[in-house]
Amino acid sequence: MSNIKIKILDKEIASIIIDESKTYNALSFRNLGDLIKAFKKLDNDKNVKVIIIEGAGKSFSAGHNLKEVSGLKKKAKYQKLFNLCSKLMLQIVEGKKPVLAKVHGAAFAAGCQLVASCDLAYSTNDAIFATPGVNIGLFCSTPMVAVSRKINRKIMMKMLLTGDPIKAKYAKEIGLINDCFAKSQLDKEVLKVAKIIASKSKLTIKIGKQTFYKQLEMPLKKAYAYTSKMMTKNMMTMDAKEGISAFLEKRKPKWKHK
Amino acid sequence: MSNIKIKILDKEIASIIIDESKTYNALSFRNLGDLIKAFKKLDNDKNVKVIIIEGAGKSFSAGHNLKEVSGLKKKAKYQKLFNLCSKLMLQIVEGKKPVLAKVHGAAFAAGCQLVASCDLAYSTNDAIFATPGVNIGLFCSTPMVAVSRKINRKIMMKMLLTGDPIKAKYAKEIGLINDCFAKSQLDKEVLKVAKIIASKSKLTIKIGKQTFYKQLEMPLKKAYAYTSKMMTKNMMTMDAKEGISAFLEKRKPKWKHK
Amino acid sequence: MSNIKIKILDKEIASIIIDESKTYNALSFRNLGDLIKAFKKLDNDKNVKVIIIEGAGKSFSAGHNLKEVSGLKKKAKYQKLFNLCSKLMLQIVEGKKPVLAKVHGAAFAAGCQLVASCDLAYSTNDAIFATPGVNIGLFCSTPMVAVSRKINRKIMMKMLLTGDPIKAKYAKEIGLINDCFAKSQLDKEVLKVAKIIASKSKLTIKIGKQTFYKQLEMPLKKAYAYTSKMMTKNMMTMDAKEGISAFLEKRKPKWKHK
Repeated sequence: MSNIKIKILDKEIASIIIDESKTYNALSFRNLGDLIKAFKKLDNDKNVKVIIIEGAGKSFSAGHNLKEVSGLKKKAKYQKLFNLCSKLMLQIVEGKKPVLAKVHGAAFAAGCQLVASCDLAYSTNDAIFATPGVNIGLFCSTPMVAVSRKINRKIMMKMLLTGDPIKAKYAKEIGLINDCFAKSQLDKEVLKVAKIIASKSKLTIKIGKQTFYKQLEMPLKKAYAYTSKMMTKNMMTMDAKEGISAFLEKRKPKWKHK
Repeated sequence: MSNIKIKILDKEIASIIIDESKTYNALSFRNLGDLIKAFKKLDNDKNVKVIIIEGAGKSFSAGHNLKEVSGLKKKAKYQKLFNLCSKLMLQIVEGKKPVLAKVHGAAFAAGCQLVASCDLAYSTNDAIFATPGVNIGLFCSTPMVAVSRKINRKIMMKMLLTGDPIKAKYAKEIGLINDCFAKSQLDKEVLKVAKIIASKSKLTIKIGKQTFYKQLEMPLKKAYAYTSKMMTKNMMTMDAKEGISAFLEKRKPKWKHK
Repeated sequence: MSNIKIKILDKEIASIIIDESKTYNALSFRNLGDLIKAFKKLDNDKNVKVIIIEGAGKSFSAGHNLKEVSGLKKKAKYQKLFNLCSKLMLQIVEGKKPVLAKVHGAAFAAGCQLVASCDLAYSTNDAIFATPGVNIGLFCSTPMVAVSRKINRKIMMKMLLTGDPIKAKYAKEIGLINDCFAKSQLDKEVLKVAKIIASKSKLTIKIGKQTFYKQLEMPLKKAYAYTSKMMTKNMMTMDAKEGISAFLEKRKPKWKHK
C-alpha cells in the first residue's frame, strides 16, 4: 500500500498526505513516484480545483530517505533519484492547479524544496525549515533551485552554508511561506484560502498559473508579448465574458470553467 | 479633450495626471494612447528631469475599462488593447527619465502594473493595491509581469490567486512601493524625492536608468561587461569630470547635462 | 608594500584586510589587483576554508579612488579600471570558498558592491551603505550589478537615483547584509559563523557554492537538470558517504575533503 494518501477535504479541495511517519515522510524513490502519480491524478480530476500537500505524524517531510540513499551505491541510481525528485517539483510548478503546502514540524532539504515549489505555503508557528545537506557532506543543490527562487540570496546562502534551520515567523518574513498560525488554526486557515481560490474559474486559474511561471523566465519585452497573447486567449473564454458581465451587472459570476 | 493632463509642479518636475474620475481613471484605449504620448513628450522635453504619474479623483487607477473591454468582442481588438498597455509600461521602463508613481485610493490590475512599472512609487497610508482579475475570470497576466519582477513570488501568487487587495504599509514591506505617507503629506514627500533626483545630472541619470534595466536581464558576467562599458561611456561625459572635480575640490558640481 | 594584508584568524579562517585608511580603503588599480591576488592565493591555500574581507581604519571601503580616477583621462584606462573591479567581484562569486564581508563605517559605491558580492555579510550597527555615484555624475552602474541581484528593485532604484546612504538595520531588512551587531561584538559574531562553515566539508561547500551561482542564472528546468547532475557528483565523494554514514550511526562525521 502506498504511503501517499488522497483525502477530499471539501468537494473541490483535495489533500495529498505523505503518510510515512516512521521516516518523517521521507521522499524515497517510492514516495516520490507515488507523489507524482497523485499530483497527476488530481490535476486531471475534473472535480478538484485546489490541491493541498501535507505530512502525517510529527513532521511535514525530512527530505530524502538517507538509509535508502546510503544503499544506492551506484552513480546512475543517485542520478535517477535526484531526477525523480526534480520531476515532482516540476510537476507542481507546471501543473494546472494551485498547490498549497500545509506544513508542521520540520520541512528539511527536499522537504523544504517541496514547500518552496508550491504556489502558496502555510505552516504552524513552530514549524522549522532548513537546507541542512552541508551537515552530511551533501550540499542541498537541488533544494536550493526552488528555495533560491523564492528568498533573498544572502539569506539562502546562510541557510545553505550553515545548515541551520529557520523558524516559521522568519520564513514568512523572507517569503518562503505566506503565513503561519497556531497549530489548532492551521487546517481552518488553509481551507479558508483554498475555498477562496476554489470559488474562481478553474480555467482562468489554469491559464494564469501556467503563464505566471513561464513569463518569470523571460526578459521583460518577451514576457509582455507572451502574456498579452495569453490574456487575449483568456479573454476569449466564456468565463472571462461571464465574469465581466457579472461585474458590470453587479451580480455573482457563474463559472462554466470554459 | 484628452483625460491625460500634464502639470509642471516645479520647473524641472512634471506630473502626468489621469483625469477621468468617473471611470476611476481606467486605462482605456484612448487613455493608454494619450499616456504613451504624454510620457514620450516629457521624455523629449529638455526642461523636464523627473516625471510623476498620478490619478485625479478618488483613485489612482482601476485598471482596464471593463465596459470598453466588454464591447470589444473581437480577438484582434483584445490583442491590440493588451499590446498597447504593454507598450505604455515598456515606455516607462525604457524611457530616459525617472518616473515616480504617486498613488492614492486604489491601484488595481493594470493600475497596479503601472505602479510596479515606475522606477519609484509612493502612496497614501490608505492606498490599496490588487491584481483582482481572477475575480472576473480574467487572470492578471500582463499586470503580473511588472509586479512579479518587484515582489516575492509566493506573495504575488497569493495576490493573483485570491484577488485580494493589500494595504500600503504591506506594499512597502514587500517592495511594491518605496514608502507611504498621510494623505496631507504625500504631495510634499514625493516632491522632495523628485527634487533630490532633479538636482543630479540628467545625462548621468539617463545612462544609469537605461543601463539598470538592461543589466538586470543579463547573466552576471555579461552584466559586468556591459555595465563596465556603460560606466566608461559615462566617465567620458563632461558631467562625470565636473562631478569628480567638484568632489575633490569640495564644492557643488555645476551640471551641463552633457 | 601592498595595502592588502592577509591575517590568519583561526587555523582555517583567513581575513583579507584592505589597509589604506588615508583613502578610506579605496579600490584603486593597485588595491584591486592585490585583492584579486589575495583572493586567488587563499582560494588555492589548502588550509583555508573560509575567507573574511574587511577594511582597516574608519571604514570598510569608499569605492574607487576618485583622485586616481580623475587622473586617468583616457577612455581605455577607465575601461581597464572598471574591468579590473568587475574581475575582483567575479573572483569572489566564482571562487571555491565562502567569502564573508565584515563591514564597519561606510561601504560606498564599489565598496558596497564588494559587500553585495560576498556570500554573506555582517556589519556594525552604525555601518552605512550607498551607491552614491549619481552625486558625482557617475552612476553606480557596475556596483548595481551586484546590489540589484540581492535587493528589491525599487529600493535599489531609490539608492541609485538619490545617492542616499542606508543604515545597517535597514540593509539587513532588505537582504543586503545578513546581520548587524554592536561594534564590540562584530569580530566575535563573524568568527562564530565562519567557524560553523569551517566545520563542514571543504569539498561539499566548493561544489555547493559554485553550483549555487550557476543555477541562479538558468531557467527552472535547466537548473534542475544541472543541479541533479552536480548533486550526483557530490554524492559520489567520500565526504557525502562519510556524512551520511555518520548521520545514520549518530556520530560526528570526519571529513577528508575528498
